Amino acid sequence: MGWEFWTKQLDEEELVVDGGFEDYSTTTGSSSSSSRAAGMNGTGPSNLVDPLEDPLPGVGTYEDFNTIDWVREKSKDRDRHREITNKSRQSTVALLHSISDAFSGWLLMLLVGLMAGALAGGIDIAAHWLNDMKGGVCLIGFWFNHEHCCWTSNETTFQERDRCPQWQSWAELITGTSEGAFAYVVNYLMYIFWALLFAFLAVTLVRAFAPYACGSGIPEIKTILSGFIIRGYLGKWTLIIKTITLVLAVSSGLSLGKEGPLVHVACCCANILCHLFTKYRKNEAKRREVLSAAAAVGVSVAFGAPIGGVLFSLEEVSYYFPLKTLWRSFFAALVAAFTLRSINPFGNSRLVLFYVEFHAPWHLVELAPFILLGIFGGLWGALFIKANIAWCRKRKSTILGHYPVIEVLVVAALTAIIAYPNSYTRMSGAELISELFNDCSLLDSSQLCGYKQVTDRPAGEGLYTALWQLALALVFKMMITVITFGMKVPSGLFIPSMLAYYHHDWFIFKGWCSPGADCITPGLYAMVGAAACLGGVTRMTVSLVVIMFELTGGLEYIVPLMAATMTSKWVADAFGREGIYEAHIRLNGYPFLEAKEEFEYSSLAVDVMRPRRADPALAVLTQEGMTVGEVETLVESTHYSGFPVVVSQESQRLVGFVLRRDLLISIDNARKRQEGVVSASQVVFTEHAPTQPDDAPPPLRLRGIMDLSPFTVTDHTPMDITVDIFRKLGLRQCLVTHNGRLLGIITKKDILKHMAQIANRDPESILFN
Amino acid sequence: MGWEFWTKQLDEEELVVDGGFEDYSTTTGSSSSSSRAAGMNGTGPSNLVDPLEDPLPGVGTYEDFNTIDWVREKSKDRDRHREITNKSRQSTVALLHSISDAFSGWLLMLLVGLMAGALAGGIDIAAHWLNDMKGGVCLIGFWFNHEHCCWTSNETTFQERDRCPQWQSWAELITGTSEGAFAYVVNYLMYIFWALLFAFLAVTLVRAFAPYACGSGIPEIKTILSGFIIRGYLGKWTLIIKTITLVLAVSSGLSLGKEGPLVHVACCCANILCHLFTKYRKNEAKRREVLSAAAAVGVSVAFGAPIGGVLFSLEEVSYYFPLKTLWRSFFAALVAAFTLRSINPFGNSRLVLFYVEFHAPWHLVELAPFILLGIFGGLWGALFIKANIAWCRKRKSTILGHYPVIEVLVVAALTAIIAYPNSYTRMSGAELISELFNDCSLLDSSQLCGYKQVTDRPAGEGLYTALWQLALALVFKMMITVITFGMKVPSGLFIPSMLAYYHHDWFIFKGWCSPGADCITPGLYAMVGAAACLGGVTRMTVSLVVIMFELTGGLEYIVPLMAATMTSKWVADAFGREGIYEAHIRLNGYPFLEAKEEFEYSSLAVDVMRPRRADPALAVLTQEGMTVGEVETLVESTHYSGFPVVVSQESQRLVGFVLRRDLLISIDNARKRQEGVVSASQVVFTEHAPTQPDDAPPPLRLRGIMDLSPFTVTDHTPMDITVDIFRKLGLRQCLVTHNGRLLGIITKKDILKHMAQIANRDPESILFN
Repeated sequence: MGWEFWTKQLDEEELVVDGGFEDYSTTTGSSSSSSRAAGMNGTGPSNLVDPLEDPLPGVGTYEDFNTIDWVREKSKDRDRHREITNKSRQSTVALLHSISDAFSGWLLMLLVGLMAGALAGGIDIAAHWLNDMKGGVCLIGFWFNHEHCCWTSNETTFQERDRCPQWQSWAELITGTSEGAFAYVVNYLMYIFWALLFAFLAVTLVRAFAPYACGSGIPEIKTILSGFIIRGYLGKWTLIIKTITLVLAVSSGLSLGKEGPLVHVACCCANILCHLFTKYRKNEAKRREVLSAAAAVGVSVAFGAPIGGVLFSLEEVSYYFPLKTLWRSFFAALVAAFTLRSINPFGNSRLVLFYVEFHAPWHLVELAPFILLGIFGGLWGALFIKANIAWCRKRKSTILGHYPVIEVLVVAALTAIIAYPNSYTRMSGAELISELFNDCSLLDSSQLCGYKQVTDRPAGEGLYTALWQLALALVFKMMITVITFGMKVPSGLFIPSMLAYYHHDWFIFKGWCSPGADCITPGLYAMVGAAACLGGVTRMTVSLVVIMFELTGGLEYIVPLMAATMTSKWVADAFGREGIYEAHIRLNGYPFLEAKEEFEYSSLAVDVMRPRRADPALAVLTQEGMTVGEVETLVESTHYSGFPVVVSQESQRLVGFVLRRDLLISIDNARKRQEGVVSASQVVFTEHAPTQPDDAPPPLRLRGIMDLSPFTVTDHTPMDITVDIFRKLGLRQCLVTHNGRLLGIITKKDILKHMAQIANRDPESILFN
Repeated sequence: MGWEFWTKQLDEEELVVDGGFEDYSTTTGSSSSSSRAAGMNGTGPSNLVDPLEDPLPGVGTYEDFNTIDWVREKSKDRDRHREITNKSRQSTVALLHSISDAFSGWLLMLLVGLMAGALAGGIDIAAHWLNDMKGGVCLIGFWFNHEHCCWTSNETTFQERDRCPQWQSWAELITGTSEGAFAYVVNYLMYIFWALLFAFLAVTLVRAFAPYACGSGIPEIKTILSGFIIRGYLGKWTLIIKTITLVLAVSSGLSLGKEGPLVHVACCCANILCHLFTKYRKNEAKRREVLSAAAAVGVSVAFGAPIGGVLFSLEEVSYYFPLKTLWRSFFAALVAAFTLRSINPFGNSRLVLFYVEFHAPWHLVELAPFILLGIFGGLWGALFIKANIAWCRKRKSTILGHYPVIEVLVVAALTAIIAYPNSYTRMSGAELISELFNDCSLLDSSQLCGYKQVTDRPAGEGLYTALWQLALALVFKMMITVITFGMKVPSGLFIPSMLAYYHHDWFIFKGWCSPGADCITPGLYAMVGAAACLGGVTRMTVSLVVIMFELTGGLEYIVPLMAATMTSKWVADAFGREGIYEAHIRLNGYPFLEAKEEFEYSSLAVDVMRPRRADPALAVLTQEGMTVGEVETLVESTHYSGFPVVVSQESQRLVGFVLRRDLLISIDNARKRQEGVVSASQVVFTEHAPTQPDDAPPPLRLRGIMDLSPFTVTDHTPMDITVDIFRKLGLRQCLVTHNGRLLGIITKKDILKHMAQIANRDPESILFN
């Protein structure tokens, strides 16, 4: 049985049934390179006079709130790259173009790093200024913040560097004195006034100009990176409004951090800068590579932790993260971190925000409290997620959701009223963390260091007050953060979570170390506690440890950090596998196929595919024999995103797959531009049109828009393998065959619905395709 | 057209042609969970009386030098996990079993970390001792090394802590004096003698007991992790011999490092420890997850760089690296690093080998020399790979390869003879690096610090001598390393590469900084140069930067390191895309599908698949109608690893795929054990045996060993997509269809051959399946 026999046998049979073999032999004949068969990229083969040779505008693009096809996008990019490489051998200009194309990715990364670093610096400076504004004003110029105001003053001594006559609290300015109950009340009221004003401005701006600018943005970015399209989510308006409102929201004193929003801001920068390069503008997959790197940049500028940022992107956010992206992310994260350092918003010329240098070694016996911290962190994380999701659900379903402005104002007022009297909640998150991380030195004037002046003395009075205040602050922060996260203002979670935990550490630490105050490093406990708490909420491990260690420069403390985060993750996982971001993704019904968890059930592809037993048969097109009118009727009577093309209704042998959008655009275009195409024209997907009677209208040839290599699995394929294929290849749909015949189709949504059903959740909670 | 019509239509047609529909409807009927259809795991469906219900021993295993099927292995593990989870709901014992199963991975990681850390500590101590043995002996006890010997002595002052009467050089011991030319010659000869003895022992042990223990092992481990099977490569003999010979080889003074071998040793530990847990012993995919983590452990103990180790495993070695492995690798790497620290082989109680703490900031203008270093590193890397591969090829093809012992001895003698007179080449690699990294302090007695005693004085005499010696050492090390790497002794590359570069730095640095000796940190240049050089040779970037930064504790110097490694990679890539490990993989003809590079050509699946145009048709089995004798004849007349099963020769509609090995074992077993199975028995792959005449021998039912969900692509699928599928899913073969009919098959080997052909290499250089 040689090749000849083989082809002949196929030939005879095929020609009788559907005449489809010619296209096979033609393609084989043209062998390898030059004429890539009409494939997924929407361009027709060159040996055909086909109206679709130049792809129509719109063909190959996606609608809003739809999932992209990674395979198609990557294939498109490889075609583009191949073309440039081939041309580069012909002329010098093309060669230069090819080189510039190769380096455009790096250039883009450089720009993203610079822009995000600059923006982060601006945000830091502005937030610092506005935050100080709540307490008072600088007489030299209102644009100076407290610290800066006193720098410019000559009357400041080192000891009292934050007190100078140029900086006046509101009470001083209004009543002329800073002493007494009345002044306190005035300051208190001004504090609340400013907090409310900032909160009001923030929520109004978000509602008026860019509704996508609210929240942390990380759940949505995760979804977008997995291939979903939300137009405008990373647009210029979102960027502008998010930047402004982030400053306002942080300054208003609301219990929120700026890392999540900074990741969002960095992604917006990346998305906007992508428009400068055709390579990234036109390709959804390539753009997502850049966005993955931008997520790393966001964390890098939020914490001054470039390596941690890259690992965060890899572990928590990204979906498709090839090695190339790893290098580029690292590069971009470094550029951003150094841009931020040049701007120097913290005035300490360090790359990191809370630079501490502990040198005391930790003891093995301390692992026990570290693990305890981990357990507490895990419990807190699980509780936080449950409470926050319950609150958000309530907001969605009850009347509460209709008054976001009032909600924000009430929370802001509440926060300001409760926060002001306690000096630990009054200061901004970053200030508080610095204070808590601080390894008390003798020069330090912080209350928390009260006990350390004489080593063998029991803890001083100031320390007990401080601990009491911290304990209160802990309870308060915990409660308010649950409510705040998910409101309609930009909000991050890291800093509040860390805060909550720092407090706790101090609480534990109290009982532990008061007797011999030098035995342990309190800052280390704060650090470990923060990591445990964040670990519980987000379920990150490696990236969290690396961030903490870069954040603080404490290379020696990897083991305590690791022990605490792992314990925290295990404890929290016991109460529910999802981190806060996944929980929010599910809450919003985004089509996100979690890559971390295994699909654990024993269903087969046939159990998940459509049509189900009771459903009407799968809507298919035949490769010839259908008229334009019939196709249009079929398309209009269904809502499917795509249709398989088969040899004939009888044989159900699969030829290809056509997307609804491409089909509609092409038919519409042909009816307008192509002469003679009427409802009775035949739609032909074969390479050569079949012979028709002379009086028949010219056929409409649509092979160019057909995907000739649709993915198929057999009906017996276990769903765990199918899910794996979907995840790893980034598929949108997959056809199901039985013994070589088309049987059904599985889409990403079908899989998500199936998973929801198994987990006893409502399958209808999956909203998008 | 409802479901009924649909099934009926299919039913009629199917039943006429092949009677195969029953099995479809049965499977659908049994719906989701309980009876997972006879699938990839080799167990038959429960509703059939099938001799294969319990898988036969051997079915589902692999032969030596073959590639595993990742999908099948992962599916097997998921089945196992599902079974345990289901059982755990029934009894407490099963629940405990399920919990212990979940934690066995972590336990295994702990054990691997402990074992590898302990071994690395032992190797360090032993190598240090043997290395000192080349110079002299301790009179108190020969088992003390030089440093230790003088510690125990009371007569040592701090200034001369390496000179004490208890430690005698060989000349002193033999001739009674350590002065004069004769003593020098005696020491020289003894040095050469020991070097030769160690080298001889090393090469003999390797040849006699474990031929796999030679070389760095990283190319092979990369291949193994990608799914290849080399039995014994990670076995106990390899472990024992590699550990011993590594100590000998390093001590012999050969220009080789111990990181590659340490990765190999760690992987051996992991592989051996895997046998303690059924979960890992029986599953090739799960075991490879552990091995990926072990690679991280190896680097972690080699450099004291746990994060760098994990990134090394991720970037350079691993093929399949899920997030779970990331966490576990990190855990294991930490455990190993801390075990090593507890053993404290370097006596400085630091986690890192060459701890330096520079605090001088670097200046932006210094980026220029850093990039220059990068360029040099890239050039050196490209040259090194070319030269080393040329040398290895020569060794393979000429008579040289037949005398590995003599080769090693000659190189060892040469190394010893040339190295001894130069004090920089005489010391061991680690010592030299410490010396070069050193930030000269006033106390330091090193020659290299000669110039620093008085800051504004031009470089002293000692410095010039030192630089001259270093320059010579650079040239020598470069040449000898090319020859050494790939010899039949355990050898690593990192340290020699780093060394080579350190020298160079010093050379550059000479011209740069002699005038005002304080202007730059020489150690930093050494560090950056080392990174650039290693980057050129291995093409690592992020992991290298992180390793260097963990190695030296220099958090501030990420940017210079990054600039140098990126430049180095780009420059080296311009001369050839392969790193040294990939080059060695290709040299050995292993079937390794590189995940980093894109497949850039526009071929289609039909161009790569077998059978080719001129070949005989694809060998297929039919799902019924073939006798045992016919099947045996078909299998024996071909050498294929597997055979597609089709409905019938005429229709060529694909039903499943059977592996040759499983088929042979099953038939063999049936002939022996199952009554009535003779050559005339029908082989049946359908779920229900067709009705046969009464006098026919009973059929042999083999549905249980058939893979019911073989992967298929269409003939029009571009090869870039096909290669992507192979890489991401870890396939071994994939079937090619055209309009629903089976047309051919593509194996991993076919793809590699095709790629070799396109790159104008010999396709026959791909040796294994």
